[in-house]
Amino acid sequence: MKVFISGFGTVGQGTMETILVKSMDIQRITGDQVQIVGVTDSKSYAVKADGVCSFSVLGSKNMSGKVGPDMKDGKSTVDIMKMVEFDTLIEASPTDVETGGEGLKNIRWALENGKNVITVNKGPLALEFRELMDLAKKNGCMIRFEGSVGGAMPIINLCNDALAGQKIKSIQGIFNGTCNFILSRMDGGLPFDQALKEAQQLGYAETDPTNDIEGYDSASKVVILANSVFGMDAKFKDVNVTGITAITSEAIALARENGMVIRLIGEVSKGKLEVSPRLIPKGHPLSISGSLNTALINTDLAGPITVSGRGAGRKETASAILSDLVAIMLAQKN
Amino acid sequence: MKVFISGFGTVGQGTMETILVKSMDIQRITGDQVQIVGVTDSKSYAVKADGVCSFSVLGSKNMSGKVGPDMKDGKSTVDIMKMVEFDTLIEASPTDVETGGEGLKNIRWALENGKNVITVNKGPLALEFRELMDLAKKNGCMIRFEGSVGGAMPIINLCNDALAGQKIKSIQGIFNGTCNFILSRMDGGLPFDQALKEAQQLGYAETDPTNDIEGYDSASKVVILANSVFGMDAKFKDVNVTGITAITSEAIALARENGMVIRLIGEVSKGKLEVSPRLIPKGHPLSISGSLNTALINTDLAGPITVSGRGAGRKETASAILSDLVAIMLAQKN
Repeated sequence: MKVFISGFGTVGQGTMETILVKSMDIQRITGDQVQIVGVTDSKSYAVKADGVCSFSVLGSKNMSGKVGPDMKDGKSTVDIMKMVEFDTLIEASPTDVETGGEGLKNIRWALENGKNVITVNKGPLALEFRELMDLAKKNGCMIRFEGSVGGAMPIINLCNDALAGQKIKSIQGIFNGTCNFILSRMDGGLPFDQALKEAQQLGYAETDPTNDIEGYDSASKVVILANSVFGMDAKFKDVNVTGITAITSEAIALARENGMVIRLIGEVSKGKLEVSPRLIPKGHPLSISGSLNTALINTDLAGPITVSGRGAGRKETASAILSDLVAIMLAQKN
Repeated sequence: MKVFISGFGTVGQGTMETILVKSMDIQRITGDQVQIVGVTDSKSYAVKADGVCSFSVLGSKNMSGKVGPDMKDGKSTVDIMKMVEFDTLIEASPTDVETGGEGLKNIRWALENGKNVITVNKGPLALEFRELMDLAKKNGCMIRFEGSVGGAMPIINLCNDALAGQKIKSIQGIFNGTCNFILSRMDGGLPFDQALKEAQQLGYAETDPTNDIEGYDSASKVVILANSVFGMDAKFKDVNVTGITAITSEAIALARENGMVIRLIGEVSKGKLEVSPRLIPKGHPLSISGSLNTALINTDLAGPITVSGRGAGRKETASAILSDLVAIMLAQKN
């Protein structure tokens, strides 16, 4: 299995490390080896048809801030992908929910050319889900995206495999660890601005936190769940979104007096695609504190299933990519 | 896919209902139909080579307390299985952790004759796990058992599929809803005997509750997890078991004063197979109240993953069997 990695930030680097560290395990489970034959970031690239150069590629990123000795100089990632034979694209470039960005172009090209795709880039999935699934089907390749929702928390493959045959009636969840961290700190008495500043200092929130605190990141995940688990044809604009910026210390205190907390909940159910702050009773599965993600899945047979895990992080997101990679390798073995 | 159901109590009946109700969904997902061609309980049986007689079979159980018009009259379930062609045995007869009971004989015969097996019967798995896996491999058939641990709570397939490629470092969990119900009622001030009586009145505990309250049921599940997720070769007798019968109201009160609860925890980790009551801080994932099952899975990449769901019940256990059935049908399609 020859792999091309697009995007070499935290997730791309973590994925490469994970593939290298887990190479023996992958071979034991799938009977096949993984070679990383190409990597790009926004500025530079490295390709090597026989893979395994990966260690030095990784090293050069650490030394010079670029993935390889070769600068893109106007070439796109698609141009680079054309330079090398590979089987599976791992798309980990930055999410752009306005246009889908280069990630959407990369995924389209890969599927059109019969390559499997594993993406944690939410933009293309939130914008053009149905088109991408149809493209994969038409070209006989697979597209998987466990890491796009909930990071290390298993949710998409859990619903579609472990709960196969059941009707998923609704999913409600905490899909943004940054917001949950901020709200948890506000539970402890901090005002919003200070809680946000703390999240930024700890690296949970970005310098421009809009995407998280306005609920856009959670909304992308709601769209992906609606399409992949509920078979809807939803787009980002279909989600009713309210973020957490208007939540005051007074509101939090009032909730607390009534045995409740405020949490930013994403929900997919019949006729409802929503991200909004909600009052949750303490002790309820969705009342958790800290930066974990959690989801409450309501099914017709199993009843309620709750799952939680780390919603982001280098190794954590790589773990979701690894499970998708193993699933593709096992499917192609048959 | 022709299916034979051994055991027609709550789980067997629930499984038949589920297969009938979900027949269209199963066909949509797998492209194949399921026919139930045989059913046995301890006293009687029904076989019909073309299946679909299932509705009337089900009816006769409700009317007369037996599964079909035909009495076993000394015939074993293996004898009945020989009377009809089928592909997959669903083994749901009562668990016997001393000898494996008829369930072990049924599973052995099925695998030796190239039939797939789905079992929720814990006895055979707790006693002869490695032998059964080897038998399945040798005869080119599949054996799955998601419902044997945690009922509707996904755990085995979650660890082996959704977390594929990761090292599972430990699993700690609440694997017996009856004990957790009793301990939760004791949190509220009831003494053990009264909490047990209430559990029996509500149908959570059996008339002879030994298997639950002495921790044997949890220990079976620990063995199954050790073997199926950790690749050990553990037997029931290898588990260090302490039940909940010696827990006093005073111990519960002392825990409460220190912000803790007492829960019966099963653990599999390096060098440790244990079921014992433990002090758990309130708010910890393993501090949950009520009859749910929950598991805390520690992995090398994803970190901690928590999952919870209903540990028992007619539809709930059938949901786990359904996911195994779909997985087998999809695997055989390839």
